[in-house]
Amino acid sequence: MTGIKQAGEKKLMLFSGRAHPQLAHEVARELGTEITPTDLRDFANGEIYVRFAESVRGSDAFVIQSHTSPVNSWIMEQLIMVDALKRASARRITVVAPFFGYARQDKKHRGREPISARLMADLFLAAGADRIMAVDLHTAQIQGFFDGPVDHLHALPLLAEHVTRHVGTGPLTVVAPDAGRVRVAERWTDRLSSPLAIIHKRRDAERPDQVSVHEVVGEVAGRTCVIIDDMIDTGGTVLRAAEALTARGATQVIAAATHGVLSGDALERLEKANLAQLVITNTLPTPSGFSPGGLVVLSIAPLLARAIREVFLEGSVTSLFEGEP
Amino acid sequence: MTGIKQAGEKKLMLFSGRAHPQLAHEVARELGTEITPTDLRDFANGEIYVRFAESVRGSDAFVIQSHTSPVNSWIMEQLIMVDALKRASARRITVVAPFFGYARQDKKHRGREPISARLMADLFLAAGADRIMAVDLHTAQIQGFFDGPVDHLHALPLLAEHVTRHVGTGPLTVVAPDAGRVRVAERWTDRLSSPLAIIHKRRDAERPDQVSVHEVVGEVAGRTCVIIDDMIDTGGTVLRAAEALTARGATQVIAAATHGVLSGDALERLEKANLAQLVITNTLPTPSGFSPGGLVVLSIAPLLARAIREVFLEGSVTSLFEGEP
Amino acid sequence: MTGIKQAGEKKLMLFSGRAHPQLAHEVARELGTEITPTDLRDFANGEIYVRFAESVRGSDAFVIQSHTSPVNSWIMEQLIMVDALKRASARRITVVAPFFGYARQDKKHRGREPISARLMADLFLAAGADRIMAVDLHTAQIQGFFDGPVDHLHALPLLAEHVTRHVGTGPLTVVAPDAGRVRVAERWTDRLSSPLAIIHKRRDAERPDQVSVHEVVGEVAGRTCVIIDDMIDTGGTVLRAAEALTARGATQVIAAATHGVLSGDALERLEKANLAQLVITNTLPTPSGFSPGGLVVLSIAPLLARAIREVFLEGSVTSLFEGEP
Amino acid sequence: MTGIKQAGEKKLMLFSGRAHPQLAHEVARELGTEITPTDLRDFANGEIYVRFAESVRGSDAFVIQSHTSPVNSWIMEQLIMVDALKRASARRITVVAPFFGYARQDKKHRGREPISARLMADLFLAAGADRIMAVDLHTAQIQGFFDGPVDHLHALPLLAEHVTRHVGTGPLTVVAPDAGRVRVAERWTDRLSSPLAIIHKRRDAERPDQVSVHEVVGEVAGRTCVIIDDMIDTGGTVLRAAEALTARGATQVIAAATHGVLSGDALERLEKANLAQLVITNTLPTPSGFSPGGLVVLSIAPLLARAIREVFLEGSVTSLFEGEP
Amino acid sequence: MTGIKQAGEKKLMLFSGRAHPQLAHEVARELGTEITPTDLRDFANGEIYVRFAESVRGSDAFVIQSHTSPVNSWIMEQLIMVDALKRASARRITVVAPFFGYARQDKKHRGREPISARLMADLFLAAGADRIMAVDLHTAQIQGFFDGPVDHLHALPLLAEHVTRHVGTGPLTVVAPDAGRVRVAERWTDRLSSPLAIIHKRRDAERPDQVSVHEVVGEVAGRTCVIIDDMIDTGGTVLRAAEALTARGATQVIAAATHGVLSGDALERLEKANLAQLVITNTLPTPSGFSPGGLVVLSIAPLLARAIREVFLEGSVTSLFEGEP
Amino acid sequence: MTGIKQAGEKKLMLFSGRAHPQLAHEVARELGTEITPTDLRDFANGEIYVRFAESVRGSDAFVIQSHTSPVNSWIMEQLIMVDALKRASARRITVVAPFFGYARQDKKHRGREPISARLMADLFLAAGADRIMAVDLHTAQIQGFFDGPVDHLHALPLLAEHVTRHVGTGPLTVVAPDAGRVRVAERWTDRLSSPLAIIHKRRDAERPDQVSVHEVVGEVAGRTCVIIDDMIDTGGTVLRAAEALTARGATQVIAAATHGVLSGDALERLEKANLAQLVITNTLPTPSGFSPGGLVVLSIAPLLARAIREVFLEGSVTSLFEGEP
Repeated sequence: MTGIKQAGEKKLMLFSGRAHPQLAHEVARELGTEITPTDLRDFANGEIYVRFAESVRGSDAFVIQSHTSPVNSWIMEQLIMVDALKRASARRITVVAPFFGYARQDKKHRGREPISARLMADLFLAAGADRIMAVDLHTAQIQGFFDGPVDHLHALPLLAEHVTRHVGTGPLTVVAPDAGRVRVAERWTDRLSSPLAIIHKRRDAERPDQVSVHEVVGEVAGRTCVIIDDMIDTGGTVLRAAEALTARGATQVIAAATHGVLSGDALERLEKANLAQLVITNTLPTPSGFSPGGLVVLSIAPLLARAIREVFLEGSVTSLFEGEP
Repeated sequence: MTGIKQAGEKKLMLFSGRAHPQLAHEVARELGTEITPTDLRDFANGEIYVRFAESVRGSDAFVIQSHTSPVNSWIMEQLIMVDALKRASARRITVVAPFFGYARQDKKHRGREPISARLMADLFLAAGADRIMAVDLHTAQIQGFFDGPVDHLHALPLLAEHVTRHVGTGPLTVVAPDAGRVRVAERWTDRLSSPLAIIHKRRDAERPDQVSVHEVVGEVAGRTCVIIDDMIDTGGTVLRAAEALTARGATQVIAAATHGVLSGDALERLEKANLAQLVITNTLPTPSGFSPGGLVVLSIAPLLARAIREVFLEGSVTSLFEGEP
Repeated sequence: MTGIKQAGEKKLMLFSGRAHPQLAHEVARELGTEITPTDLRDFANGEIYVRFAESVRGSDAFVIQSHTSPVNSWIMEQLIMVDALKRASARRITVVAPFFGYARQDKKHRGREPISARLMADLFLAAGADRIMAVDLHTAQIQGFFDGPVDHLHALPLLAEHVTRHVGTGPLTVVAPDAGRVRVAERWTDRLSSPLAIIHKRRDAERPDQVSVHEVVGEVAGRTCVIIDDMIDTGGTVLRAAEALTARGATQVIAAATHGVLSGDALERLEKANLAQLVITNTLPTPSGFSPGGLVVLSIAPLLARAIREVFLEGSVTSLFEGEP
Repeated sequence: MTGIKQAGEKKLMLFSGRAHPQLAHEVARELGTEITPTDLRDFANGEIYVRFAESVRGSDAFVIQSHTSPVNSWIMEQLIMVDALKRASARRITVVAPFFGYARQDKKHRGREPISARLMADLFLAAGADRIMAVDLHTAQIQGFFDGPVDHLHALPLLAEHVTRHVGTGPLTVVAPDAGRVRVAERWTDRLSSPLAIIHKRRDAERPDQVSVHEVVGEVAGRTCVIIDDMIDTGGTVLRAAEALTARGATQVIAAATHGVLSGDALERLEKANLAQLVITNTLPTPSGFSPGGLVVLSIAPLLARAIREVFLEGSVTSLFEGEP
Repeated sequence: MTGIKQAGEKKLMLFSGRAHPQLAHEVARELGTEITPTDLRDFANGEIYVRFAESVRGSDAFVIQSHTSPVNSWIMEQLIMVDALKRASARRITVVAPFFGYARQDKKHRGREPISARLMADLFLAAGADRIMAVDLHTAQIQGFFDGPVDHLHALPLLAEHVTRHVGTGPLTVVAPDAGRVRVAERWTDRLSSPLAIIHKRRDAERPDQVSVHEVVGEVAGRTCVIIDDMIDTGGTVLRAAEALTARGATQVIAAATHGVLSGDALERLEKANLAQLVITNTLPTPSGFSPGGLVVLSIAPLLARAIREVFLEGSVTSLFEGEP
Repeated sequence: MTGIKQAGEKKLMLFSGRAHPQLAHEVARELGTEITPTDLRDFANGEIYVRFAESVRGSDAFVIQSHTSPVNSWIMEQLIMVDALKRASARRITVVAPFFGYARQDKKHRGREPISARLMADLFLAAGADRIMAVDLHTAQIQGFFDGPVDHLHALPLLAEHVTRHVGTGPLTVVAPDAGRVRVAERWTDRLSSPLAIIHKRRDAERPDQVSVHEVVGEVAGRTCVIIDDMIDTGGTVLRAAEALTARGATQVIAAATHGVLSGDALERLEKANLAQLVITNTLPTPSGFSPGGLVVLSIAPLLARAIREVFLEGSVTSLFEGEP
């Protein structure tokens, strides 16, 4: 028989864009390795340049980039990194997007809109991604937008454990701040063995474009209310929910969300909400400077590191979560 | 200049599988045309045979098939029809699935599950479909599973108009029978200017696999309750919701859903629910024989016909709905 | 150099749909392993649910399903299993279809027909299959319908060895029951060193839709005739061939085919054919209950197991057959 | 409404490579148009250059090339023409290959072979072809190799009409020169209402690589034998068949085939076969110079022209053939 | 025959992103139509929202966006517009990118770099673009990066006509400011019938990373030098070329380029170059505020409008340019 | 856990078409292995037959074919080999094309031309190639035509080392024989620390189709001139450059090029150029028979072998070149 034989080997390599290097380095530390040195910079006109300083041939490459602001640049940077990895012969490329951008445009709310979340999945596929890893996608259906494996991680155990420890033994209600979050809220009520309330947005028949009332549906008076959400962006939803809950007699209000997008003056707005605690994770970099009382940022890095290790070693990511108490 | 010129022309042709021919013929009648004669039959071992009796070359083909039982056979029949149209040079092929099968498997509820709704979209694409038309997909995100235009039609105006006419002037509550329907329920509350309630399924921490309580969240006592859903399959969800609402003092209970899947002994079960009215559309064939009191079946054919006409004439499908009062 | 290295490893996993579990278990036994536990069931409306009970990440997955009745359901089940494997990160997915459905629709016999065999290949590709393994495809060209490797196994050595042993030393003629089988019949004549006859179907010029005569072309009087076919479906072809051969003076008639489709009352019909022996393999489950005299079912499991092992170990499937005496 | 409207129009344009310009011009004449002027030439190192002399934007382009010798160059030329049409914005591109090259490698005869016929279909698809038109593909399954419409034309009516006129009223047998042609031969027997014979190649068990006997199966003594085939390449098959038929007492032997490949000294070899007539069509250019007695070349151009016109006008190609007497 | 017939019609619609609306409106004016009203805005976290205010179904859509700063946002906006058009059933989508971003990364200059220009072409294809129109791509090979028609327009006639009119009759030399522009410079020398010079960048063998000398190769003393380039980005290349030419005795120096990228303080830098004239087009918005003496901006809108009209009417874009005197 | 585990292994296999077997064998020797025995031949009508004599299942296959004359046949042969490897389950397929055909048609020089270099990349992708390895592509952008990794090797170090050794210490000028080669010439000037000259082709305004003057731009009098090019095809470019350089006083002229295409009577033409030396590599077979004085052929095999080894072992190809002195 002709040919040359050689034992097989595989090699995990971690890469990070410039969006949230702290998180990437924390993940690397958890894994006991380092981010592969990469030359990443902007040309004068804003075009992004990428070059890896080491050979990536044959690697099992994980490219970490969280889609924080400026979101389009960081998505493009990650796409370009994937293209460079593909052309440099990486064996398998996993896009790790702790916060996956454009996830809220996951359907056409009205005619002639894009489905940008599907578009993002298509763009990563076109660039050469083999798989995607993300934390708490806006809706679970987004997994189906990518034509390949999606490892969908959940921060709920991390957040819920913190909330449980903090709240103590008083009566507690889990609150879905809008209709889209009721499913996730039910997972919280199961875990915390507590009742559910929802904030229901009603529109005036006269003025259909505007939400006229934020109605609380469910028991909240005399209880600690935990508003849960996947992300806190402008803070408006949480603020209005907190106001409605307080008006209905809630003892204290806590908010818990995976992604602290915190655009613009979100933190100032949340300060007004008088939250007993605001719990998020570091899937996105936390704005420096002003920080509202009670802000707690939990690290998502151990979860990401465990998932990456399982993917690399071809263990089970499912078991990571289903074994959770 | 060499060559032969000719004025352009386009031609709508309607096709129907064997799943629900009544609906297809009703659509054809609304459009003022007929279903193209097609030889459709099973070989001895159950393989399906398809042949069109007329030339379909250059046609704008609409293939109507509702994914009723036996669901796998009717999906396969539609796939085979699409393949035959593609190979016979149809210019554009629209899959019309009034009820789109496997829509409930639109995400991985747990690890190692398929996303069958995405798979169905991929299969139709592979067979040669250019576009999909469907009524009230289980979740709107399924639009994003298909790599092409999806015309997503809504039965809500049709159903709501009937309910409004029936109910009269008493106090009314819209009820989401589970967390996944709250969004749709909100569209009903906006249209009917009425409050919302939801049925919340709680699990016992000791026995997490079982739903222990169906808790009603919201005001229902002394009111007419309208349970809304996208589909009624075994009838269990509606039955349990109706029981909980009655126990909480609802005056009467109405159920309205787009798709009457009505598997097995669903109708018998619904008979027990003592509904004042059960309103569905004919996206699926209604089981013959036993029929519970108060069953009303509205025809979806006019809506489908209008949408098909707009698609063919390249008018606006969006305007069909946004102009609704 | 950054990164983490690890020795490579590969892992064969066997999966089976619900069409023909006996065969799958027999293959597993031959390989010295077991079918991976899988939750497979129908929802109330007939949609199929799939979930693997163990991690399949990184596996070399072989999904066994024979396309027996209800053929569309079993094909769909296999497609859904492939989708689930793809999304659960199986490294390579081989569709093992001992009997590959829709193989007879391998061309357009007339205009405006589908080419369903190509469609099936496209569907498996769309679902995520990397390769196909099948036994005695209706025509060898079907290998070319799939854009990837096809391992095409042949039952001829198995069948021919049995026939040789059974027949003894008398004069023997191999009979092709129709024009499409003459190529395969020639392979039998080479192996058995015997002459060829064919059954020629003539159409009456007056009534072109009907076969008027089944003419025997070749020497059959005073000889043992072995009718060979790839599959026996309704049994009509074999019955008419046997009658024609007997009328022409054949001493005894044997029929040998790879696939015992045996639809409807095929076995009753074959009983009338007075065959000295009817030899098939278990690529499809044999109908229980009534069984005609002389029915012999040979196991295809050892052949499938050897081929799967070679594919997994990257040995040679070709050598499996070319080394046959 | 914004935008500019314009009546639609379509334009047929014919293109021809350099393989068989006579046929292309004949087709153009039948259609009442001309071949679009095109600059086609070889660079010094044999690379082919293509440029169209007129705008092809928006055209319904038909690219005629018959895959005669040097076959690889002419296939490549056609591929390059398709690429140029795609990049120059032709609206639809039909590859017209009266003789489709590599059709005989339509399956893996043994392991580790290519399926070149599928490869050719894939190459045309990759270059940008929307559809293929061909005459008498080696096997009908090749239609399934292309992912799009294939218009498969048949020369049988043309050839059979000539044979019928020539032969007169004597007893006639249709002869399949090998196993692969029996299906086609049956179509001839139906049309000519005559019996069938086949030439059966037997291999010696001692020397399996060689055909030892060319056995005639069926009645031929005292009859006119019409050997039919899809193509005549080296002439060896026809020569050996004619010899066997003559030895078995055939009165006279005629050969009819769609494609006169006639490689090397095929015509000299056929001269030895003492055929009463050798009927082919001009799907391929006929070798100039030596021509055996009785060679008749029928023109396929009218058939191609009618099919192209139907495709352009979106009429029915099926009806072209099914209306044949 | 079943079905409904209708005369064909086509409809041009123009769309514009937010990068360079002046140019888009100028193109619309030239065409005698308007930009389709579109809701384009940023969400709080920078994600872009798109919705068309009119039905685009069946349209021949041209989406104009020039890839100016912030380049990644404007490319993403155009991708999202294309996705929305595809899902809203536009018949054909042309990406009009007067300046095509990332064109300079058209190859791997060193290992482990991306080929971002190819990536951009792939992203537009993935989003649903059917064709691309661009002006003076950095290299002509970029046309080959897109799998579909690319209309590549040239500003050379526009620029050269202006230069000729300005310069008068003195001796003139065309100067390529680096090796990559020599081909384009030769087109200028042919048009202006003047000699060529090039600026040759030499690297010191000791310090290979730095250009040590900008050597003028060719005759420039006592002549008007026209530095030509496809784009002026930081202005550094032109500045150094102008200095080298002046040092070598050039009478006056003119610079002409299609794209005025003019990043950062490019205009200040160019002010120092003492150019007699700096001629660009408005493919990109010109920075407001400071403007160096001699800056001339020619409008590319008439050229774009003519090309769009020809594409829509299926005339000839080639003839637009080859007919140029 | 179910399943069977096995240590991973990989296996390099080398294949060669019939275009340039000497080079392939030389590469094999360098790697310490042999070309896998393969049956390669032409059928009577010129169609190519391929079959590998050994199992290639799971191999890392490198298929060497240089696109020499007859170029279309050898490209087709390589495509067919790739198809056969794909269908025989090779794990990864690398097309090694030391000279990549059709590279000069890398853009549309005028409207309605193909981009044949992109087409070739698409054809190899369609056939199943995973990656391409080539030496000195006509333009580096061609790397971007393939949707996958391209290992682009450079002969410059090999050629330059030879030239340096040969020339000695006299003053030397690097000459780009046309505008397209200036970039490559700059790489030579950096390496040899010598000035640059270019041959500028000017067209007469009266007769734009013809090059009227070959102008030398730069210092050449009294110097050794090294004309560099990627390929020498008809020899015309080098001959005219040599004449112009001699006329301008060059002491001696050397030509160095990677690819000796040497079509037709190129060698006779080059004999007239009176070159002191003509240096090429053996990426293409050298014409036997007549050989001009000073012809030197350097072997590219060591470079190819090193690159293949690095690709197989997943080392770094980049480091091969960047470490060059």
